[in-house]
Amino acid sequence: MAIKVGVLGAKGRVGSAVCEGVNAAEDLELVAQVDQGDDLQMLVDAGAQVVVDFTTPGSVMGNLEFTTAHGIHAVVGTTGFDEERLAQVREWTGREGAGHVLIAPNFAISAVLAMSFAQQAARFFDSAEVVEYHHPHKLDAPSGTAIHTAQGIAEARKEAGLGPIPDATEQSLDGARGADVDGVRVHGVRMTGMVAHEDIIFGAQGQSLTIRQDSYDRTSFVPGVLVGVREIAGHPGLTVGLDGYLGI
Amino acid sequence: MAIKVGVLGAKGRVGSAVCEGVNAAEDLELVAQVDQGDDLQMLVDAGAQVVVDFTTPGSVMGNLEFTTAHGIHAVVGTTGFDEERLAQVREWTGREGAGHVLIAPNFAISAVLAMSFAQQAARFFDSAEVVEYHHPHKLDAPSGTAIHTAQGIAEARKEAGLGPIPDATEQSLDGARGADVDGVRVHGVRMTGMVAHEDIIFGAQGQSLTIRQDSYDRTSFVPGVLVGVREIAGHPGLTVGLDGYLGI
Amino acid sequence: MAIKVGVLGAKGRVGSAVCEGVNAAEDLELVAQVDQGDDLQMLVDAGAQVVVDFTTPGSVMGNLEFTTAHGIHAVVGTTGFDEERLAQVREWTGREGAGHVLIAPNFAISAVLAMSFAQQAARFFDSAEVVEYHHPHKLDAPSGTAIHTAQGIAEARKEAGLGPIPDATEQSLDGARGADVDGVRVHGVRMTGMVAHEDIIFGAQGQSLTIRQDSYDRTSFVPGVLVGVREIAGHPGLTVGLDGYLGI
Amino acid sequence: MAIKVGVLGAKGRVGSAVCEGVNAAEDLELVAQVDQGDDLQMLVDAGAQVVVDFTTPGSVMGNLEFTTAHGIHAVVGTTGFDEERLAQVREWTGREGAGHVLIAPNFAISAVLAMSFAQQAARFFDSAEVVEYHHPHKLDAPSGTAIHTAQGIAEARKEAGLGPIPDATEQSLDGARGADVDGVRVHGVRMTGMVAHEDIIFGAQGQSLTIRQDSYDRTSFVPGVLVGVREIAGHPGLTVGLDGYLGI
Repeated sequence: MAIKVGVLGAKGRVGSAVCEGVNAAEDLELVAQVDQGDDLQMLVDAGAQVVVDFTTPGSVMGNLEFTTAHGIHAVVGTTGFDEERLAQVREWTGREGAGHVLIAPNFAISAVLAMSFAQQAARFFDSAEVVEYHHPHKLDAPSGTAIHTAQGIAEARKEAGLGPIPDATEQSLDGARGADVDGVRVHGVRMTGMVAHEDIIFGAQGQSLTIRQDSYDRTSFVPGVLVGVREIAGHPGLTVGLDGYLGI
Repeated sequence: MAIKVGVLGAKGRVGSAVCEGVNAAEDLELVAQVDQGDDLQMLVDAGAQVVVDFTTPGSVMGNLEFTTAHGIHAVVGTTGFDEERLAQVREWTGREGAGHVLIAPNFAISAVLAMSFAQQAARFFDSAEVVEYHHPHKLDAPSGTAIHTAQGIAEARKEAGLGPIPDATEQSLDGARGADVDGVRVHGVRMTGMVAHEDIIFGAQGQSLTIRQDSYDRTSFVPGVLVGVREIAGHPGLTVGLDGYLGI
Repeated sequence: MAIKVGVLGAKGRVGSAVCEGVNAAEDLELVAQVDQGDDLQMLVDAGAQVVVDFTTPGSVMGNLEFTTAHGIHAVVGTTGFDEERLAQVREWTGREGAGHVLIAPNFAISAVLAMSFAQQAARFFDSAEVVEYHHPHKLDAPSGTAIHTAQGIAEARKEAGLGPIPDATEQSLDGARGADVDGVRVHGVRMTGMVAHEDIIFGAQGQSLTIRQDSYDRTSFVPGVLVGVREIAGHPGLTVGLDGYLGI
Repeated sequence: MAIKVGVLGAKGRVGSAVCEGVNAAEDLELVAQVDQGDDLQMLVDAGAQVVVDFTTPGSVMGNLEFTTAHGIHAVVGTTGFDEERLAQVREWTGREGAGHVLIAPNFAISAVLAMSFAQQAARFFDSAEVVEYHHPHKLDAPSGTAIHTAQGIAEARKEAGLGPIPDATEQSLDGARGADVDGVRVHGVRMTGMVAHEDIIFGAQGQSLTIRQDSYDRTSFVPGVLVGVREIAGHPGLTVGLDGYLGI
């Protein structure tokens, strides 16, 4: 039987992509599309089992108070969660019969997997570097994802007792060897036409392993949201980060 | 304190690369180099804690009978193990105080990780294909590794209840869509100058994830052998396949 | 001074992308947007120096008869030109003071360059193969571009007197070695999330050269159209194919 | 009829790879292997039509004086040519009946083609960057080849009147955007296991073009040397750089 899904912020760019994704999935049924001004009671009336919330920091807490209290699970991509807010959500989800909550900063499942694989691989290789590629309108370099990836690699190397990454460079043009993130070099390429791409490269004697992630358009969060929708019934309480759902 | 290592088949092409690798590692000490005609007692006299065996099907069983009986661990890349031989080794390693044994068909650690990551990722993507690249002297296509990778993907998809991979192809030149391995398409490229390379590609809405493995020369098995040497003390009995040692 | 540009089929998906591209270019001025039912005289009144025609086989000949007669140059992406039509256009463009015409089947400038480079490189390498990647809704495999690329490589090899591409394959799963296009192997990958991508791979002793073309979205024809608009004044008569404008 | 080839410095690492390459080519015949202490007259006696010189700055001028005077062509990979030496060689090759000379700093034909294609493509794209990958023992970053490539791109952009490459970066970790070579960003990755690799990336609306060059081992100069040997008879006088022979 299909899971009954409600979408909050259904008329927004992101929300409408989620609605399309739910409609296209045979095992999911879109039963409620809620937007600004609508009454949340619609969700209960429609029998929604899971809601997807890509709304605003101003409305998400009210939404979650309602859904947890009504035993509806919530998959949340809305930003603005600090420790205080997470503690409040955790409290709500701890109540008898409460709906579960998944809050994730990144639903691009290929990016989440790439980061997980990078952390698994890091301790087996002498060398590791990250090269990210984005459109030239991006304001920061390197990307937050690339920095986060490099930090994960650095941490895994440290735990395994690995020393510094080998690098005999003596003569260098300024910037040629990239940014140093906890000892892992990170390079940012800015290229008209590209969207968001990342190479995580590991090297050992006679071999290399490259984990390449490509985002081709702005709907790449949809498959990850649908994983959340499908699996949330099995994850009581509050989960932060999609990786907790990937079984890896 | 360094782990004391003996190498069997030390004068062969593979064995001598292992010797170089052990010598280059600060935490390992090469205490015995054994070759045809040498007495295995050398290993005991030298205090070897772990031996590496890249010899021949004709001599490996004798070697393992000796090492297990003397409480010496053995990391084995020699081929020719069938169920009967594995059962015998398992029996030897089960005895009181016996040396441990690791037998692996593939020590290229990047290839072993690539396959493991492919199996982890498979259930989250609509599409999966494998493209392997080798020198043109290779006799079989696709490579055994690529077939094995595709089978692992197919199995993971099946367990997750995924249907067939989408493919609207109606008009096709013969062979254009590759070989069908349990429903996963596999392509073999043959290219002068290349050594051994593999792309495992996964696709979902708006994104793809590619796991790329490159072997640049014939010493790429060395890092995996050294992982085996370092970790075998913690793996009693017989282990088949390096992935059992990777904690993934 | 900016070149004055008119767009035919301006309200269509392709035409409106051309209009945006012209508007975004500092050296071009959009002076007329013509669609079904509009009078072509608009172009003359607006002082258009170049028109872009992405219309239909049914209307393009009338358009070109008008533009050539009025000394307006035309960059044409409309399909359906056979030898008879080309001969007619050639005749029109040969008249005193006639507008020039560029007709191209493919305006994706990266794809046109990739094919040109492939033809230049082919005679210096032992091996050559093509791997193309498309979304899974594509009906044909391999893509027309990939077949065309392989044919160009085969022709260049033949002219240089090269023999067959080396391939020792003896044991093969059906399809593993791709489709045979004039002796060049071509592989088609179908992958959810991807758009249109091509690897043209050349190999020689100890090295390879890969020409990779990525199309990320359906506006990738725009830069090639703008090259046509900017350069057409210097190319009298009829030119077929954008490569004639690339100076390569 | 096969071209008769002599090799100078035949016992050196490079010279012996050249000898193997000549022996493996059906249209070439190895007639003389000359090394330190041998008399150059051997070349004349053996009827050598072309010699290959990978010797030392100390001996190459004497070799070329001899070969040009005897009407033997010379393909030269020896280093140390300044303007004065080139002028001297040019004078020798200008004499009646003199042997031709090709002096090239780089015989890796894939690298020479990559650079040529980069210069041809540069004026058609908004964006261009270079990422090079080498083993971690390399002392300089970025590589000389990558710097040279970036300079060629910058020059081609300037000739075409292109402005600066778009880049909205406001917040950046030091080094993240690579080294600035005449306005083109260049990134150097250092990776155990890799040999020498380069990505030259171009981007325009909705698309990118990547020229990837891989050197897998130290014999990658051989195919370029053989091109020189085969074509030198048609190139009188002194030619500097293999690109002059590639017809591009």
